[in-house]
Amino acid sequence: MTVLTLGPAGTFSHELAAALFGDDIELLPTIRAIIERVAGGSADGLVPIENSEAGGVGETLQGLMEFGVSITGEAYMPVRHHLAAREDPERLMVIYAHPQTHEQCSILLGSLGVEVVHTSSNAASAVAMQGDSRAGAVIPEMAATIYGLPIVLRDIQNNRENTTRFVQISATPREGARCTKCSLLVDPGTDRVGLLAEILGVFARRGINLTRIESRPSRRGIGRYVFFIDLEISEGWQEAKEELKRMTTVRELGCYARLEVPGI
Amino acid sequence: MTVLTLGPAGTFSHELAAALFGDDIELLPTIRAIIERVAGGSADGLVPIENSEAGGVGETLQGLMEFGVSITGEAYMPVRHHLAAREDPERLMVIYAHPQTHEQCSILLGSLGVEVVHTSSNAASAVAMQGDSRAGAVIPEMAATIYGLPIVLRDIQNNRENTTRFVQISATPREGARCTKCSLLVDPGTDRVGLLAEILGVFARRGINLTRIESRPSRRGIGRYVFFIDLEISEGWQEAKEELKRMTTVRELGCYARLEVPGI
Repeated sequence: MTVLTLGPAGTFSHELAAALFGDDIELLPTIRAIIERVAGGSADGLVPIENSEAGGVGETLQGLMEFGVSITGEAYMPVRHHLAAREDPERLMVIYAHPQTHEQCSILLGSLGVEVVHTSSNAASAVAMQGDSRAGAVIPEMAATIYGLPIVLRDIQNNRENTTRFVQISATPREGARCTKCSLLVDPGTDRVGLLAEILGVFARRGINLTRIESRPSRRGIGRYVFFIDLEISEGWQEAKEELKRMTTVRELGCYARLEVPGI
Repeated sequence: MTVLTLGPAGTFSHELAAALFGDDIELLPTIRAIIERVAGGSADGLVPIENSEAGGVGETLQGLMEFGVSITGEAYMPVRHHLAAREDPERLMVIYAHPQTHEQCSILLGSLGVEVVHTSSNAASAVAMQGDSRAGAVIPEMAATIYGLPIVLRDIQNNRENTTRFVQISATPREGARCTKCSLLVDPGTDRVGLLAEILGVFARRGINLTRIESRPSRRGIGRYVFFIDLEISEGWQEAKEELKRMTTVRELGCYARLEVPGI
């Protein structure tokens, strides 16, 4: 089965998809386009859902709300940036970097004192340095491989804990014995005092661990939200889910296992 | 007192700041720069904190976590986009629009069938159409006024409910008798089963309405969060706050009133 993920070639999404699924990958320009195609049923998708520095990925959460796809796996990808160059870093005239990448590597780049020029993507940084022997670029491993660029400094990101969580999405659920986690989308409709406390109480009373709760706009006006809730599957969770469904509107986004990433 | 807000001239932030505070406004290029200057104590700031379509504004929430500023007011601004042109809309050769603005006006722009070219900001769209009589731009009211551009179609956004909530920020709290709302930043530190349910229960038991809860990465590794909680001030809320402080780490971001916006 083809897996759709976010291009251009050399993104973190591409690197993770290649490690997990091999060669049968198709790169699309937007997360929304991936989720839309997956809903059509012809392919699976791999999309980022949250980052440990920046938080939830709005485009993915919005897509999960709009399209009837299921989450069928999750994977964690450390965000690792490297300096590619054909010179000593101190002798470079310019370093190309995406603004977010620049921010994530600000300590090392600041200490080098070389001018940083911003680009539209990490892949664009790789392309920009290709023709110029005095230029460097801050890029992920896979971009260096694809564009044949030598890495001179590894892991230059400020925070070694920087990690992005990805989810595999499919047109239909694939719940198996190995599933350890379940994602729910709760829409309280009309709000009232204490409703969210009651919703969380359904899980707390049974000792079920919620690994994440994220509010998102319902798009029915400001101050009205839906909630993405992730829980660890443990005794009583099916019962909790049924109790919750009697209280409010709940969509099961899927139960799934963590995918081991070879070589990462 | 000078009020700092987000430029360039003609942004929604600028329009709202002018309506609320008159002429003593300074425009800065980033939200982070505004919050940093406000923390220094020489000025107040006005920054967007959430939008009814896109959700929380990460840069503002991150700035509130990092800098010791207080929220001293809130205001709501409808997001209204207009088509500026010197021609019948159907006769235009090109329409300039920021990508997010394009998305928010996709229905009308799609129906016109004119090529849309993306720009880096709404103000840049206004500048781009200036020299070309066959070009249009999708811009807010204030950008049309500043750049002297005629509006030919008003309120072309897909969703009439689209609203952004702004907060006024100051170096120190300014709590008065008129305050109706209070914002807290809760950092649970180490997570355990049911902790968030207990935190919300403190308010639910007393009938205190939470108007918003938003999880944000703690930046201590993936899966570890802090929570922004907004509540309506009502009987027992001080007691609830004290109980909460005995359970976990709580920072009071400020109590405040809603600012009425003249003419909007």
